[in-house]
Amino acid sequence: MNTENNVKTLIVKKPLKLDCGKTINEFPIAYETYGSLNEKKDNAILVFHALTGDQFVTGQNPITKKDGWWSYAVGPDKAIDTKKYFVICANVMGGCMGSFGPSHEDPNTGTAFGTNFPVITINDMVNAQYNLLDHFGIDKLFSIAGGSMGGMQVLQFISNFPDKAKTVIPIACTSSHSAQNIAFNELGRQAITADSNWKDGDYSSKNTIPNKGLAVARMAAHITYLSKKGLQEKFGRKLQEREDLKFGFDADFQIESYLRYQGSVFVDRFDANSYLYITRAMDYFDLAKQFKGNLSDAFRATKAKFFIISFTSDWLYPTQENKDIVIALNSIGANVGFVEIESDKGHDSFLLNVPDFLSALKNFLDKSYTEN
Amino acid sequence: MNTENNVKTLIVKKPLKLDCGKTINEFPIAYETYGSLNEKKDNAILVFHALTGDQFVTGQNPITKKDGWWSYAVGPDKAIDTKKYFVICANVMGGCMGSFGPSHEDPNTGTAFGTNFPVITINDMVNAQYNLLDHFGIDKLFSIAGGSMGGMQVLQFISNFPDKAKTVIPIACTSSHSAQNIAFNELGRQAITADSNWKDGDYSSKNTIPNKGLAVARMAAHITYLSKKGLQEKFGRKLQEREDLKFGFDADFQIESYLRYQGSVFVDRFDANSYLYITRAMDYFDLAKQFKGNLSDAFRATKAKFFIISFTSDWLYPTQENKDIVIALNSIGANVGFVEIESDKGHDSFLLNVPDFLSALKNFLDKSYTEN
Repeated sequence: MNTENNVKTLIVKKPLKLDCGKTINEFPIAYETYGSLNEKKDNAILVFHALTGDQFVTGQNPITKKDGWWSYAVGPDKAIDTKKYFVICANVMGGCMGSFGPSHEDPNTGTAFGTNFPVITINDMVNAQYNLLDHFGIDKLFSIAGGSMGGMQVLQFISNFPDKAKTVIPIACTSSHSAQNIAFNELGRQAITADSNWKDGDYSSKNTIPNKGLAVARMAAHITYLSKKGLQEKFGRKLQEREDLKFGFDADFQIESYLRYQGSVFVDRFDANSYLYITRAMDYFDLAKQFKGNLSDAFRATKAKFFIISFTSDWLYPTQENKDIVIALNSIGANVGFVEIESDKGHDSFLLNVPDFLSALKNFLDKSYTEN
Repeated sequence: MNTENNVKTLIVKKPLKLDCGKTINEFPIAYETYGSLNEKKDNAILVFHALTGDQFVTGQNPITKKDGWWSYAVGPDKAIDTKKYFVICANVMGGCMGSFGPSHEDPNTGTAFGTNFPVITINDMVNAQYNLLDHFGIDKLFSIAGGSMGGMQVLQFISNFPDKAKTVIPIACTSSHSAQNIAFNELGRQAITADSNWKDGDYSSKNTIPNKGLAVARMAAHITYLSKKGLQEKFGRKLQEREDLKFGFDADFQIESYLRYQGSVFVDRFDANSYLYITRAMDYFDLAKQFKGNLSDAFRATKAKFFIISFTSDWLYPTQENKDIVIALNSIGANVGFVEIESDKGHDSFLLNVPDFLSALKNFLDKSYTEN
């Protein structure tokens, strides 16, 4: 898709050494902002998006024309109140909404990088985004927040830049991808690379698109975002516009139709190679490993105030994995709050209208801001 | 694969009206037996296999040359003791190990049925297999047993033929597929039909095989067979024959390599269209719906003794869904025992060496046989 006209882009001209060993000398970071930076520049919140998110947090996404992914949480008078705070969000490196990614042109070949793009990590992502602080002249962020992969970036950011945020809000995340997490991501990657239109990642120069594989990957992931109970309550065995089973392979059940729809709309807004790269970054994420197995050491240098949020029905990053972060923080006497929100909406709860979550988020931010 | 030389087949020449409305007049049921039928013909156990199982329950599978799928449970002196019992197992209708299925030749076209094969149900499967009782001259089975889709067949069989089994053992199953169950099956079907080699199901006459799609379907299903905890304990973040991450898309993690292996060996023994048909039958399964929503009514006519077994870490057919069957039986005063076995091995527990499960199964059978 053509993203050029609607995307603010910072061209970073400072070399960045990636975890894979390669150095990139110049790269674009596409971003969006909401609200106004105050004079003291102490009201900025850097929001990190999840696997399939982008920089368009709230309001209408100018590319997809749909609501931003965190419209329930971010906006005037909302939990992250844009009348009060200056919200910044960047498209992650590896993404497909303007930041440096596999669909960009490789200067060596004149065609898209495809799988010649370097494998990037959560660490690379936050190091790239750190440049936005200099860009806006922000010495210290009021907060950093994000759910799912956004939460991983939050954890990595405060570990890398311990004095650059006053408050830290990792939501529905983990400090390292479990075997089951990796398995689901690998399933998605296999679905994409199995598509004969994938062409070893070189589909753009071959004028094909591996949409079928990408749709299957999305369907697989989507199931993991919803709870078994939530699915049962919403769909159960309800039939799709028919009186009875049709004894065929069309979508008899609403859940089938819903999944197919999720797959089909996703491919209009997402790039298959980006899906490969970003899931890889998630699978590689293991914050404790960066500190010889001691997760507490990742946070030892920061005085930031943490607020960790999990959801009862999230089986992708269950409460226990969020609690493990709390435990690591408690063991070094860090300033940490934790809440498990009751919700049937599974991992997706952080994106949805879950009032207890939104009020907890708002209260924490507004109270912390008053103490500013 | 050529199954002809190693497969016992009953050609049923009695018309069978399928749930879809079609009637088939003659069809093959491939089966295998273990142990000997006694003179009174009262020691027979009909075992029903799961989605990807077959009639080769124990010993070496003559087609795949691997151990039969229930080798831990069935054999001399094992839980289902073939020195004592006569074990019969049939390949389900829709399968690919010799029973009537989509890879069989359609007499109207001279090529494989493909998607012209009728959509079949769990009810059709057990009605087809019922013919084996006549074939062996068995008036009443000592037991019927099966896990997963095998358990669904057990429930349907005793509902259809209430006086044809003395004991009934549904294991790790459900009386109706949940929205999440349907979602995972639909994911598998989408993966298969997304494969450009699937050719609308007509791949055999086009000399292609949708192996990539089938492998992805298998990987998706395989994740659901294992528990999150079991995966973490077995694989965690262990690397595959390497010192550190390679920053590429090869299998860095053992779990990736394991999943790819599961996909690749599966396609050697299974047919993609059979996968579509059998998953469809599972999704259509809703025993209560056959009795206007009252599951108890499915069992009102039987005096059989039930023993229902679930596993703590099975999230595909969790204990609660197994308990719902127990509740339906209790509410009509049926003879029912229930045990939830502690196991980290997830849904696959019923196929594995889980001593508490195997001894519970053995004790129930042997005690019930003594009371014979």
